[in-house]
Amino acid sequence: MTTPAQFRQSVRNGAFRQPTSGYCGDYAQANLVILPQQHAADFLLFCQRNPRACPLLAVGEPGQWSLPKLGLDLDIRTDIPGYNVYRNGDLAAQPVTLHELWRDDFVVFAIGCSFSFEQMLTDAGIPLRHVQQGRNVAMYRTDIVNQPAGPFGGNLVVSMRPMKAADAIRAIQITSRYPAVHGAPVHLGDPELIGITDVAQPDYGDAVDILPDEVPVFWACGVTPQEAIRHARLPLVITHQPGYMLVTDIRNADLAAF
Amino acid sequence: MTTPAQFRQSVRNGAFRQPTSGYCGDYAQANLVILPQQHAADFLLFCQRNPRACPLLAVGEPGQWSLPKLGLDLDIRTDIPGYNVYRNGDLAAQPVTLHELWRDDFVVFAIGCSFSFEQMLTDAGIPLRHVQQGRNVAMYRTDIVNQPAGPFGGNLVVSMRPMKAADAIRAIQITSRYPAVHGAPVHLGDPELIGITDVAQPDYGDAVDILPDEVPVFWACGVTPQEAIRHARLPLVITHQPGYMLVTDIRNADLAAF
Repeated sequence: MTTPAQFRQSVRNGAFRQPTSGYCGDYAQANLVILPQQHAADFLLFCQRNPRACPLLAVGEPGQWSLPKLGLDLDIRTDIPGYNVYRNGDLAAQPVTLHELWRDDFVVFAIGCSFSFEQMLTDAGIPLRHVQQGRNVAMYRTDIVNQPAGPFGGNLVVSMRPMKAADAIRAIQITSRYPAVHGAPVHLGDPELIGITDVAQPDYGDAVDILPDEVPVFWACGVTPQEAIRHARLPLVITHQPGYMLVTDIRNADLAAF
Repeated sequence: MTTPAQFRQSVRNGAFRQPTSGYCGDYAQANLVILPQQHAADFLLFCQRNPRACPLLAVGEPGQWSLPKLGLDLDIRTDIPGYNVYRNGDLAAQPVTLHELWRDDFVVFAIGCSFSFEQMLTDAGIPLRHVQQGRNVAMYRTDIVNQPAGPFGGNLVVSMRPMKAADAIRAIQITSRYPAVHGAPVHLGDPELIGITDVAQPDYGDAVDILPDEVPVFWACGVTPQEAIRHARLPLVITHQPGYMLVTDIRNADLAAF
């Protein structure tokens, strides 16, 4: 059984360069956002005001590339299997480490990820269609406007999982225990009520089938801050590549609020 | 502010002979079932096997008309504002006390009531359509078969409350805390999936409007054991009159499982 520390080591030495879904499944994975200090206070406020889309697991000090709360040995410059560097809102580079780009004013944000609650749902015997179909989860831009902070705003992005009603009720109970990884759903049922006009055409990820006896269930999604960041068109922002997450030492079970 | 003990006193002395909805709202009200000891073990097993429909607040000893767990002064023979006496499954009498009928082999069952969780939903700012419309809650016989025990069986009866999706999610969170008063919903969305062919034609109570932006949410209902009892066609069973409940000393808030 690979520990998160062993897993990060294999990323750090270049042996692992893939999406992290399914690895170290009992441990929380995190979305990564790195901003110059100049914009960090606004982004922190954005996360505070939109906690369901942006649940913060950890925030570093300026220049701090370690995040001991998430792993004693952790080096944020090397431990993610793929980085996206955005300049003025456009993808400018995909380096494999941040050693050359690192600056003393960079602030690291680690944001909870739905992989954690998907693990809990799977453990509870609730089938996940996108996993069954070997697809990425379906994600949609909604008409729900985020609470803005500084240059960060935009609309809520949600992920959708179709379920039988009894599973949906159970999933609400389970995910309610995990506010640190998006918590309870924000919507269920009619997609149009949150501005999704065609559920067969997700804005991110892959469409999945919704069976006649299923209800679509919508959770706030970590793509929300990614979109907010790109739309802010800051001179420089670094994130993980979608799906290439930071594997932490935090057990999913320890994220339970009750 | 009338205490439950004062309220029961007004029932006992004949001053109160009405439905109890809205009285002593912070305290749990209970459904009442009284059976001869001969059938009590089977009914207890039926409740154990169908806990969402039949959550037991208290069960007495044979012949015991007090239920100190629900109120120190409580006298089950006088403290309910209306009784139904069934003989061989048919309503035979509606006495105002049980003094003449009482037997030393009677066993009292007090079953949790949705009034408790409705109070919690109202306190949380979730509107209840049937309350707004001054109607009884809509109840339906489903195609979900109860786990039988002895002569008790039949199908699950559910109550339905239409809600906006966000309120439905919140209502699932809130009612999940109260398994002693039916707990979380058993279904939401398409009524046909649980055998309800026409939601505008409830089997008990009154139809209520479901607005286009609402989802119907279905909870297990205390009418389930009433139906099971009547269908068992026992020689003698006593219940409360629907809506004329036992007001207990148990605070709704104290029923929270977590």
